[in-house]
Amino acid sequence: MSKYDIIVLGSGPGGYVAAIRASQLGFKTAVIEKESLGGICLNWGCIPTKALLKSAQVFEYLKHAEDYGLSVKDYDKDFGAVVKRSRGVAEGMSNGVKFLMKKNKIDVIEGFGKLKAGKKVDVEGKEYSADHIIIATGARSRELPSLPQDGKKVIGYREAMSLPKQPKSLIVVGSGAIGVEFAYFYNSIGTEVTIVEYLDKIVPVEDDDVSKQLERSFKKSGIKIMTSSEVTKVDTSGTGVKATVKTKKGEEILEADIVLSAVGIKSNIENIGLEDVGIAVDRDKILVNDYHQTNIPGYYAIGDITPGQALAHVASAEAILCVEKIAGQHVEALDYGNVPGCTYCTPEIASVGLTEKQAKDKGIDIKVGKFPFSASGKASAGGHKEGFVKVIFDAKYGEWLGCHMIGAGVTDMIAEAVLGRKLETTGHEVLKAIHPHPTMSEAVMEAVADAYDEVIHL
Amino acid sequence: MSKYDIIVLGSGPGGYVAAIRASQLGFKTAVIEKESLGGICLNWGCIPTKALLKSAQVFEYLKHAEDYGLSVKDYDKDFGAVVKRSRGVAEGMSNGVKFLMKKNKIDVIEGFGKLKAGKKVDVEGKEYSADHIIIATGARSRELPSLPQDGKKVIGYREAMSLPKQPKSLIVVGSGAIGVEFAYFYNSIGTEVTIVEYLDKIVPVEDDDVSKQLERSFKKSGIKIMTSSEVTKVDTSGTGVKATVKTKKGEEILEADIVLSAVGIKSNIENIGLEDVGIAVDRDKILVNDYHQTNIPGYYAIGDITPGQALAHVASAEAILCVEKIAGQHVEALDYGNVPGCTYCTPEIASVGLTEKQAKDKGIDIKVGKFPFSASGKASAGGHKEGFVKVIFDAKYGEWLGCHMIGAGVTDMIAEAVLGRKLETTGHEVLKAIHPHPTMSEAVMEAVADAYDEVIHL
Repeated sequence: MSKYDIIVLGSGPGGYVAAIRASQLGFKTAVIEKESLGGICLNWGCIPTKALLKSAQVFEYLKHAEDYGLSVKDYDKDFGAVVKRSRGVAEGMSNGVKFLMKKNKIDVIEGFGKLKAGKKVDVEGKEYSADHIIIATGARSRELPSLPQDGKKVIGYREAMSLPKQPKSLIVVGSGAIGVEFAYFYNSIGTEVTIVEYLDKIVPVEDDDVSKQLERSFKKSGIKIMTSSEVTKVDTSGTGVKATVKTKKGEEILEADIVLSAVGIKSNIENIGLEDVGIAVDRDKILVNDYHQTNIPGYYAIGDITPGQALAHVASAEAILCVEKIAGQHVEALDYGNVPGCTYCTPEIASVGLTEKQAKDKGIDIKVGKFPFSASGKASAGGHKEGFVKVIFDAKYGEWLGCHMIGAGVTDMIAEAVLGRKLETTGHEVLKAIHPHPTMSEAVMEAVADAYDEVIHL
Repeated sequence: MSKYDIIVLGSGPGGYVAAIRASQLGFKTAVIEKESLGGICLNWGCIPTKALLKSAQVFEYLKHAEDYGLSVKDYDKDFGAVVKRSRGVAEGMSNGVKFLMKKNKIDVIEGFGKLKAGKKVDVEGKEYSADHIIIATGARSRELPSLPQDGKKVIGYREAMSLPKQPKSLIVVGSGAIGVEFAYFYNSIGTEVTIVEYLDKIVPVEDDDVSKQLERSFKKSGIKIMTSSEVTKVDTSGTGVKATVKTKKGEEILEADIVLSAVGIKSNIENIGLEDVGIAVDRDKILVNDYHQTNIPGYYAIGDITPGQALAHVASAEAILCVEKIAGQHVEALDYGNVPGCTYCTPEIASVGLTEKQAKDKGIDIKVGKFPFSASGKASAGGHKEGFVKVIFDAKYGEWLGCHMIGAGVTDMIAEAVLGRKLETTGHEVLKAIHPHPTMSEAVMEAVADAYDEVIHL
């Protein structure tokens, strides 16, 4: 039986990061992976979807080349090549993790791991033990009873990014980040797309103004949007799919080649031995304390299987925190209120902290500032005038409660707000930090100025 | 004689911003402009060049469409249309300033203003007076005696962005931001470009690693680079230009259609009455204190004509500071050590604070971290793996001394470093601020981690 200091179950952005940090801190470490190093994020999530979306963005430039003084007479997309590129990028990143495992002298154990009592893991008949076992098995596409996935006509995100051919029409059920990213991608390359959202707005976790802007942009680009609507039944017996949609006005039948179910995720907590060890689970999540220790000493859990936001960067941050705590370092609990969320359709969305509605619902007296990219010189020069930055401050104490952005490149701009909030900045400190001209980032400064009635360019 | 609280001489990003802030604070304000509202920045600088550069970037996508799974058979650029778009963007922004002047009830006085003693300004025979006069006349392209500009074959940045037709070949003298931006633009659309730089590296104000990376990228894209070289003579008598270049190896004659002189700027301080009023000037700059007051009470100076960095965002910040001080607000002097600089060629450059060499020359014990975009998932997905983020920390006190970035979109990422430095962040606070995945901004976090030997993805 091989003995390690730390064994990590699962090699996604939680697991492999935990393994690397563990190795850095001197622990003899192994990671167990049943499929591909890097997990869903690298292989079937964050990374390959960004590759697809980049192809779509470049395709948009081909369509609109004339706007930039260029001419393109004969152009097309090759769906197979677009998908192949995306798979190649994913494979490259997965190989990168392989390299990092080797470089950090981390043993990679291939196979399905099952936890056992006494800090052991069984991997297809072979047993390993460790002083600390970190569970990082991630999540998968959630299946609704009314929308059973057959992987052909009713699919999840995995199939959506590796279809053998481009569908002529697509119904996207659910309009979270995954749903709207695929909606944008397929619409952009010529598929007829309809979004069906159960709640009364798309990207429901975002600020209302962001949802409204995205809906406007999507409708302009030809995406059909049905909110307050629910797919109650799908019929896959014909050549395509017939989806019965319950709307406020009654029932409607939509037809499409394919239905993508993007209604959230389900933790991978089945058959991994949680019950045998006695690890406490509640509503699909493993219960952990601030340091990601489960109720059973020596067993830890991080990432999508724990209650925090199911995001790669959260998993990685939890991984580092968990391992540093094991190493006896002084660590501070993560501030889940300061976790940014990003959506990479066009226009991009990035946000952190409270929405205006959440702040008001908490009864906080707030100052709200907003700056539209239509008033930004850089946005005009780039031809991306859609969107805005919206900021929310506590009127009394000046705390930066929330920052919500929609527009070109905003996913790279939200870091400023995250760091500023972490450092407990005031609005005026943001204002007096000189933002370079001309950049999209000036919109952050101007939105803050707007909150304090000092905006220059409005 | 019209009487104002505040008169601003010049309507660039210093002047018009001063006027708007003044109006917000209740001052009766006028701005005097001899040419176009918005000054050089909006009309002949920051904004129209960014429009040109965007066309070049889109043109690059056309060239490399296949890399993204797309095909383009027949494409071209229309130089006239590219320039026309750029002029249109500039005009739109200038109209925007016009709108802002009207909205803020600021009087716009057209003509050439000349200062007079007693807080008066003469504008082509008509006299205006004010309690406070802010001089914001900006700068123009500097002319070298060895490189007299004729506006046709030997040109400055103004002509470079509005040539009647695309030159087949271009010599760019000077490799600061303006020089390399035009070098990139013209090379990208098919002009043969040679850069001649007097110092021993291009973008000489940047960190050495940044200069090296840009040189590598530029050479790869076909730009010829001559460093430690000087144009000593130009002969415009033939069809093109013959430039005599003194190099370390001896003299060389280069031939090209056009020579662009981009060797810095010269303040517009002539004939504006400085001598009549007695305003102190030293080496091409008007002397001011922390609040941008000149030696003569009631006269102020901001922007390129004062000693700080000649950058639009510096001018705007000085404008706001100057006016708020006039209004009796408590203001803090600008920290010129925390002013970001941006260059918008591809790859983009953004930096703030000390370079590694500057820090070492000051005898500071430093920690340096670097993260290449080749190891970034987002960069891979986007197909922009060139470049890196480099950070410099004081080893003893943890102060973030400098941040240097080169790569796609970095000009929108530097704001994080500026705000972090303003808020006196430590490296570990940056590390523990959760950066969203996958973004280019993660490279900042990873570079900081590298400085402290905690980098995950290297």
